[in-house]
Amino acid sequence: MKSRGRLLVSCSDRPGIVAAIARFLFECGANIVHSDQHSTDPWGGQFLMRVDFELPGFADRADDLRVRFAERVAAPFDMVWRLEPASRRKRLAVFVSREDHCLLELLWQQRSGDLRADVAMVIGNHPELEAVATQWGVPFHHVPVSPGRHHEAEERHREILKNGIDAVILARYMQILSPAFVAEWRNRIINIHHSFLPAFVGAKPYNQAHDRGVKLIGATAHYVTEQLDAGPIIEQDVQRVDHRQEVADLRRIGRQIERTVLARAVRWHVEDRILVHGNKTVVFA
Amino acid sequence: MKSRGRLLVSCSDRPGIVAAIARFLFECGANIVHSDQHSTDPWGGQFLMRVDFELPGFADRADDLRVRFAERVAAPFDMVWRLEPASRRKRLAVFVSREDHCLLELLWQQRSGDLRADVAMVIGNHPELEAVATQWGVPFHHVPVSPGRHHEAEERHREILKNGIDAVILARYMQILSPAFVAEWRNRIINIHHSFLPAFVGAKPYNQAHDRGVKLIGATAHYVTEQLDAGPIIEQDVQRVDHRQEVADLRRIGRQIERTVLARAVRWHVEDRILVHGNKTVVFA
Amino acid sequence: MKSRGRLLVSCSDRPGIVAAIARFLFECGANIVHSDQHSTDPWGGQFLMRVDFELPGFADRADDLRVRFAERVAAPFDMVWRLEPASRRKRLAVFVSREDHCLLELLWQQRSGDLRADVAMVIGNHPELEAVATQWGVPFHHVPVSPGRHHEAEERHREILKNGIDAVILARYMQILSPAFVAEWRNRIINIHHSFLPAFVGAKPYNQAHDRGVKLIGATAHYVTEQLDAGPIIEQDVQRVDHRQEVADLRRIGRQIERTVLARAVRWHVEDRILVHGNKTVVFA
Amino acid sequence: MKSRGRLLVSCSDRPGIVAAIARFLFECGANIVHSDQHSTDPWGGQFLMRVDFELPGFADRADDLRVRFAERVAAPFDMVWRLEPASRRKRLAVFVSREDHCLLELLWQQRSGDLRADVAMVIGNHPELEAVATQWGVPFHHVPVSPGRHHEAEERHREILKNGIDAVILARYMQILSPAFVAEWRNRIINIHHSFLPAFVGAKPYNQAHDRGVKLIGATAHYVTEQLDAGPIIEQDVQRVDHRQEVADLRRIGRQIERTVLARAVRWHVEDRILVHGNKTVVFA
Repeated sequence: MKSRGRLLVSCSDRPGIVAAIARFLFECGANIVHSDQHSTDPWGGQFLMRVDFELPGFADRADDLRVRFAERVAAPFDMVWRLEPASRRKRLAVFVSREDHCLLELLWQQRSGDLRADVAMVIGNHPELEAVATQWGVPFHHVPVSPGRHHEAEERHREILKNGIDAVILARYMQILSPAFVAEWRNRIINIHHSFLPAFVGAKPYNQAHDRGVKLIGATAHYVTEQLDAGPIIEQDVQRVDHRQEVADLRRIGRQIERTVLARAVRWHVEDRILVHGNKTVVFA
Repeated sequence: MKSRGRLLVSCSDRPGIVAAIARFLFECGANIVHSDQHSTDPWGGQFLMRVDFELPGFADRADDLRVRFAERVAAPFDMVWRLEPASRRKRLAVFVSREDHCLLELLWQQRSGDLRADVAMVIGNHPELEAVATQWGVPFHHVPVSPGRHHEAEERHREILKNGIDAVILARYMQILSPAFVAEWRNRIINIHHSFLPAFVGAKPYNQAHDRGVKLIGATAHYVTEQLDAGPIIEQDVQRVDHRQEVADLRRIGRQIERTVLARAVRWHVEDRILVHGNKTVVFA
Repeated sequence: MKSRGRLLVSCSDRPGIVAAIARFLFECGANIVHSDQHSTDPWGGQFLMRVDFELPGFADRADDLRVRFAERVAAPFDMVWRLEPASRRKRLAVFVSREDHCLLELLWQQRSGDLRADVAMVIGNHPELEAVATQWGVPFHHVPVSPGRHHEAEERHREILKNGIDAVILARYMQILSPAFVAEWRNRIINIHHSFLPAFVGAKPYNQAHDRGVKLIGATAHYVTEQLDAGPIIEQDVQRVDHRQEVADLRRIGRQIERTVLARAVRWHVEDRILVHGNKTVVFA
Repeated sequence: MKSRGRLLVSCSDRPGIVAAIARFLFECGANIVHSDQHSTDPWGGQFLMRVDFELPGFADRADDLRVRFAERVAAPFDMVWRLEPASRRKRLAVFVSREDHCLLELLWQQRSGDLRADVAMVIGNHPELEAVATQWGVPFHHVPVSPGRHHEAEERHREILKNGIDAVILARYMQILSPAFVAEWRNRIINIHHSFLPAFVGAKPYNQAHDRGVKLIGATAHYVTEQLDAGPIIEQDVQRVDHRQEVADLRRIGRQIERTVLARAVRWHVEDRILVHGNKTVVFA
């Protein structure tokens, strides 16, 4: 993995961008392994690209390449971009309340190697999941959130997160984050909402789904924005239900969808497969 | 098929209902082939049941059995019920505007034998699909709907429908029916809405879906009620999309889901597999 | 749950069976909550039925009811049948080798209450998963299987299983059981095979799938019979793959399908939802 | 569409290929709209790429560009490649027997614009589908295939196909083509097999599936090779079935999968989205 790198690029489309990127990588000695590129409109749209490449020793030369890429390629095309060594594992802070299934899925996928990232800490507004975190050798921070005192909890969050956390994962965390916090972590907080958004925004979506009599229930992983359940959608999935399923059954079935959808979204995030464009994501899955 | 019958029952649950129904059918000489029964709550819920049975000569004796069932079984338990010969093919009126895919699906499934019902007529507020109907040997009625003159169109609809139509299928019919008309055909009008309800109610759902950046698009077949896109859901399905799909692609992909979902809902309706309970359906699929 | 019971029945079909069963339950004071019945052929087929009922105090009266059911209903119709209190949790022995995902899924579903059964012991031919079992408070037995000495291992298995185990779950157990052992546990051993059977029977199915270039990979849970991977299928599912996935990716994707499919099959088994008929299962899901 | 072009490339991987292709297109004045590239192995694997580009007037300059691409790019890298104007609609010959659903799907998708190709002729070994073809204005050729006289039929096929047919679609054509014919049309004959290959090769797959008791049935579209049902798989899909479905139901459900899977495969083929590599396909969907 030391030789594997990833480049993500977003800019206004015009001819010559792929040529410039490919030439740069070739001249650096890199071999492109996968590349996936899309323009929202051939004339005047947005250019979006992800490249996976092999370059011996890249992990140690990443900074040098970034300097050169910035100057030679990114500047002329006014790009938003990232150049990342695949070998650098991202560090995740997982926020939880009382339900363990999403947290366990991430911990299990980390151990199995399916998720190439580290759950560096678990932060719970309730203490229930401390045992789970500890069992897996992950530090647990209990940060209660009292009504009307969100501010204090968030100060504590900032303190805990300040050393080297790349992304915040809300793994069925049942509290709302402040706009200021969300802004600090823009496009780096992933939430799992237990409905097929935009249906059933807000509280108790399985109750809402049961009341409406839908034939499929779903879950949605999205980046968190100031507006509740309205951020860029990363992944969604659904499962069939029928009239025999009560709300408790929907919860049971939903847990399977939630953890799968969240884990997929987190995996794509840590593998640098997601670009946010407007209020949407482009996922190079 | 002359010997096959179907019984649908809905009533307040209490012990002894299955026994009463099964005994009645046994004493009539019927053999139960499939039965599916559900109570929403074992203590004080709603009893819902569908029975498929074989009884030689049933098609000719249905009226007689109905009289006896009403007296001996339905009355004591205060049932809402239907007793139908499977051999009687229901007659459908299909309402269309300009898009042909849902209509074609129903016509093809009728011919292939997958849909055991007859498209008896096609009613279009535009004349475009006359050729399709004619090609398949089905009468076409062009009933334009002028703004502010829905009433006249509906009088014409009533006229056309008055002889032996069992159900009205809105196969991408882009007009709204009046509450009076809907009330006359309660639980007998099936609409296909081109979104995964309750997301994207109303006009241009594929545009709405594209704007929101959802990762799955869907379609929903439901019974029509007075409130737009809010009637009991019969069936839904979804298909995966990604950032490369423009609105036109969503429409293309959506057409496949729409026709499949509508055809499934119509098939269940004509095979007496649906009970409406509150604003939900119970589908004995 | 003390008042909930389940009845499973299989016999030659003829009129009057549902009536006899429903009457018996009614006379016992039971209320049928769900029932699902199917005949493979209305004339001369096999009658298959599952009934969920509520009967206050049933758990304590089950033996008495069994005696009466055997005499009054089962004998006249020559039924194969089971009458089970839902409150009795089945005890499972989970056989493993080195992979932990299926075992973890079962343990987690037990804890979350989704699986209403107890993993009473874990038996591994390798010692690796001892820590997992212990962590969850489940006894682990290391029973190595040396080439040519399967017999000894099986003697040990018999010894360990002899007290109150209801079913054996092969959770990626990579050893073959003897015909004698399989016969002792007929329709009570569930295996998960990591392919969409009957494709890719035998060893290394993900390699086989990759070589063949399939576009979907799957997993199959089945009852174990003497013939390898050929027993009655309980459940299957698939997931889409594409040309970018190497064998290691198929394994990763496959792990998700395997654990889901196995857990569903085990849940149906412990909830008495499965009847075996010939080499097929009838699942009253 | 006159300005849209597509480039497909397959060659031994080495650094610089993307750069060379992108530079060539840039120097021609083309803007890359989408590109998708994959190497089977970063060191010594196969390089596979599809590029969608916009180049005003491309349709009229395609031959000129091909000459230059061959010399400047394809030759140095020893590429297998195609450079196609998106505006050129491919012409299809659809072979049928008695079942109409796959043929109708292609005709309907052509008319709706979802399939950007022309069904130029229908060839049937039975006369039943002549009316369908005629109804849609497509020439029908009845070419019976007598036992032991396949050779004569194939001579007739060659005669009919000789003018401007790009691909042969076997739309439930129940005859086997000779190795010679298959060789002439290598990677240009698409068959739909009514099972989830490699399960249930050969005759009567729905009967085989019913006998085995599978819980999902499927269909597979593949390029035809000399070996029955063993060519490179293009697309597969499945649908859930249960114990209540008889073989006739599997056929009905299967028809929906067959036509969807075949239509998807044909669309990918005519949009130049498929590369064959060994006995597998790479689909740039």
